[in-house]
Amino acid sequence: MTSNHGAAGPDSHKVALIVGAGDALGGAIARRFAREGYTACVVRRSAEKLGPLVDAIASEGGRAVPFGIDARKEDQLVAMIERIEREIGSIEVVVFNIGANVRFPITETTTQKYFKVWEMACLAGFLTGRETARVMLGRGRGTILFTGATASVRGASGFAAFAGGKRGLRALAQSMARELWPKNIHVAHIVIDGAIDTEFVRTLFPERYALKEVDGILNPDHVAENYWFLHKQPRTAWTFEMDLRPYIEAW
Amino acid sequence: MTSNHGAAGPDSHKVALIVGAGDALGGAIARRFAREGYTACVVRRSAEKLGPLVDAIASEGGRAVPFGIDARKEDQLVAMIERIEREIGSIEVVVFNIGANVRFPITETTTQKYFKVWEMACLAGFLTGRETARVMLGRGRGTILFTGATASVRGASGFAAFAGGKRGLRALAQSMARELWPKNIHVAHIVIDGAIDTEFVRTLFPERYALKEVDGILNPDHVAENYWFLHKQPRTAWTFEMDLRPYIEAW
Amino acid sequence: MTSNHGAAGPDSHKVALIVGAGDALGGAIARRFAREGYTACVVRRSAEKLGPLVDAIASEGGRAVPFGIDARKEDQLVAMIERIEREIGSIEVVVFNIGANVRFPITETTTQKYFKVWEMACLAGFLTGRETARVMLGRGRGTILFTGATASVRGASGFAAFAGGKRGLRALAQSMARELWPKNIHVAHIVIDGAIDTEFVRTLFPERYALKEVDGILNPDHVAENYWFLHKQPRTAWTFEMDLRPYIEAW
Amino acid sequence: MTSNHGAAGPDSHKVALIVGAGDALGGAIARRFAREGYTACVVRRSAEKLGPLVDAIASEGGRAVPFGIDARKEDQLVAMIERIEREIGSIEVVVFNIGANVRFPITETTTQKYFKVWEMACLAGFLTGRETARVMLGRGRGTILFTGATASVRGASGFAAFAGGKRGLRALAQSMARELWPKNIHVAHIVIDGAIDTEFVRTLFPERYALKEVDGILNPDHVAENYWFLHKQPRTAWTFEMDLRPYIEAW
Repeated sequence: MTSNHGAAGPDSHKVALIVGAGDALGGAIARRFAREGYTACVVRRSAEKLGPLVDAIASEGGRAVPFGIDARKEDQLVAMIERIEREIGSIEVVVFNIGANVRFPITETTTQKYFKVWEMACLAGFLTGRETARVMLGRGRGTILFTGATASVRGASGFAAFAGGKRGLRALAQSMARELWPKNIHVAHIVIDGAIDTEFVRTLFPERYALKEVDGILNPDHVAENYWFLHKQPRTAWTFEMDLRPYIEAW
Repeated sequence: MTSNHGAAGPDSHKVALIVGAGDALGGAIARRFAREGYTACVVRRSAEKLGPLVDAIASEGGRAVPFGIDARKEDQLVAMIERIEREIGSIEVVVFNIGANVRFPITETTTQKYFKVWEMACLAGFLTGRETARVMLGRGRGTILFTGATASVRGASGFAAFAGGKRGLRALAQSMARELWPKNIHVAHIVIDGAIDTEFVRTLFPERYALKEVDGILNPDHVAENYWFLHKQPRTAWTFEMDLRPYIEAW
Repeated sequence: MTSNHGAAGPDSHKVALIVGAGDALGGAIARRFAREGYTACVVRRSAEKLGPLVDAIASEGGRAVPFGIDARKEDQLVAMIERIEREIGSIEVVVFNIGANVRFPITETTTQKYFKVWEMACLAGFLTGRETARVMLGRGRGTILFTGATASVRGASGFAAFAGGKRGLRALAQSMARELWPKNIHVAHIVIDGAIDTEFVRTLFPERYALKEVDGILNPDHVAENYWFLHKQPRTAWTFEMDLRPYIEAW
Repeated sequence: MTSNHGAAGPDSHKVALIVGAGDALGGAIARRFAREGYTACVVRRSAEKLGPLVDAIASEGGRAVPFGIDARKEDQLVAMIERIEREIGSIEVVVFNIGANVRFPITETTTQKYFKVWEMACLAGFLTGRETARVMLGRGRGTILFTGATASVRGASGFAAFAGGKRGLRALAQSMARELWPKNIHVAHIVIDGAIDTEFVRTLFPERYALKEVDGILNPDHVAENYWFLHKQPRTAWTFEMDLRPYIEAW
């Protein structure tokens, strides 16, 4: 860990916690906050896989701390937050960015799959939101950002599981916003509508990926800029929800 | 259908399956379908507690069969549906009517509570919808009705768990409707917005209950009429969603 | 008019006013209410063109009175309602059913066209709703039904004018419902999503019309049944909005 | 850009056109764009009343040009845009910011009032959007921003006219976005939900205004920052809609 960072300036004690830093978007958000002096606490199942992201942030002069936990597990999440607050700094902003996009006809959606999607997309978001709300309420400030998807606002055929999880997450965000905004905690929900520039899309959807040449897929850095913007909004004018999609996306 | 149809095989019986028949609304829906000659298969955790409902239906000349299962348990639900189809008749309409209305500040919402609300409001609905869809797809017809609530469309402060479950259920209904309507299975979602005339409301919210004198709380029989109406809609003009509330309700 | 209908029963003084009775749906709604004993006051620009509808209702034993007015003109609408109330009976239910579906790229949408669509879809609805609300408020009862469309909830490319008018109408319906429900006037909005079985569709969209053979376009009589159902809902459980589309419609 | 660019041809000037610059928000948006070097073309009925705004922008080193036109009049709007493009510069961003917030019971909403609200909130927005879209389509770029309100998404009791106009405007924005985004023109809609810090609120709603001390009313400069942010979004990640309200606002 970082207790030997004795010379750290004041900003080094502000933490941006990114739960779900395993994809391109989570990584870009972590880099964006790190560039502003936040210590990026980045979370995914396997801490080892976070090496490249931590290195990238360090190479830009920032600081990142990797955490390998399963965010669906209350005890792991609680312990991590406790440790961050004790050893690293105050969590000023948290981004919940775990997705679980699957598509199955309803009769082929196993109970195990339905449950797992909900655990990842929704339960982990609840645990992340609730536990960070606790520490933020103690300080009377903070920002909680949830990454949504098209499925957050629409239940398309074959998406009973994914839309169920994402709608549950959006309900969580709305309910928390209405409760926590008056306590100076900014809760917001970003609806990501479109393919993001990732290895996954490049490999599995090459035709879609080819749209990158005409700016037709979401650039993670551009998306991340919106998370930073939301975090910086003064409280006289806070946003609960905004959507993001490439200009050529049909919607 | 008459109660003396004792020797009739499964084919001669049309079944209305009411999952969540423990409240006034579930009971009223069961009676409504029974009056049209459907065998009402009524489900709640405790079969014994269904006695009064079964008797009431019988006293009106209808037929009801009680099932005491936990609809969150896949094996129990699958076994029940298999038995209904084999021994009682074809499930022509299913109503998922389990609620789980709780209210807590976010930091007082335990993981256990959050999970249980989702299990009842959403997972049980998924299991019910998927398993009845299977048998209906085999016949190429059927109606699947989900009971929603205000929380299905709004995440108010303190309702992270309930709104999460209800939104997930609505997403399920939408996704199933888009997939199954073209296969002649009518899936719909009814948004119940307001207090229903129940013992619960009468006891705990006497001021609210007093509105009954001016028709100010939902009459279960009136609500049930809408379920019957949706089931009878010809397929050239199906409804996915309708809301129901007393005339004096603020919304 | 009808003062010589000396033998009329009590129902003969109840009026169903259908503003926009020039299409298949308006006609079907008029017939539906006439079958229940309501005098159908049917309205379109040209009274002569209402002859076949009036005759059809008469041949079914009902009663219809044609009115040729421009519902965008306040004076004509006010005079008509005054005359109906004085000479025919009490307007118990009014259906606003004027559409104005056009599609143009934004830069080809003339101001004249944009204005006319709004006048037909929205202003006429406002005048109809306001003037019938006046007489209904005097009696402390009534039903006001607005016909919506897909564009009522979605602004698709090319539909700036039509969606603008239809959204305005839906806002009117919502605002009136919130104000008038507590005064015992039931205001509702029906979202018609799909092609209706009309001469227009038969001639201009023959491929779409061919879907009729598989119940794939909206049957006006089936749609009309929903208007009747809404009118009959007891006030303990009123619906504000329901959608209607054929089972095979994509949405 | 500097104020001494007197001899510069139109191409060297980027114009931000603010239609509805008579309130605090319109003024703040104009100042925000002027600070970035845009010539702020500011529009309200009376050009004289724009003097203080033009002076304020000049005192900050910016440039503003006042236009006194009635934006409901096609000929005036067309002539103004033609003149701006010919004499001042290219309209890179337009903000439609005319409101018309009134509240009346439905039966007290005169036709004149209903019409006027629609003309201001919706027709003027249509004309502004269509005419600026024309010149932007010629250049293949531009940003069109519409100011919405709570009434854009909700039709409360007494707001039939205002909600009708605002919903129509939102439908316009959605339809234009779906048509024009693929042509590289960014159309967005900002939902302003809450009182803005204005003379109007200070005078008429002193209790509301007192919330300013706890950041409880919308700061026009903070709101304006979001307009600038939307204009700068790269096209790989555009937003159609975002909401803005003070942290203590109930919603």
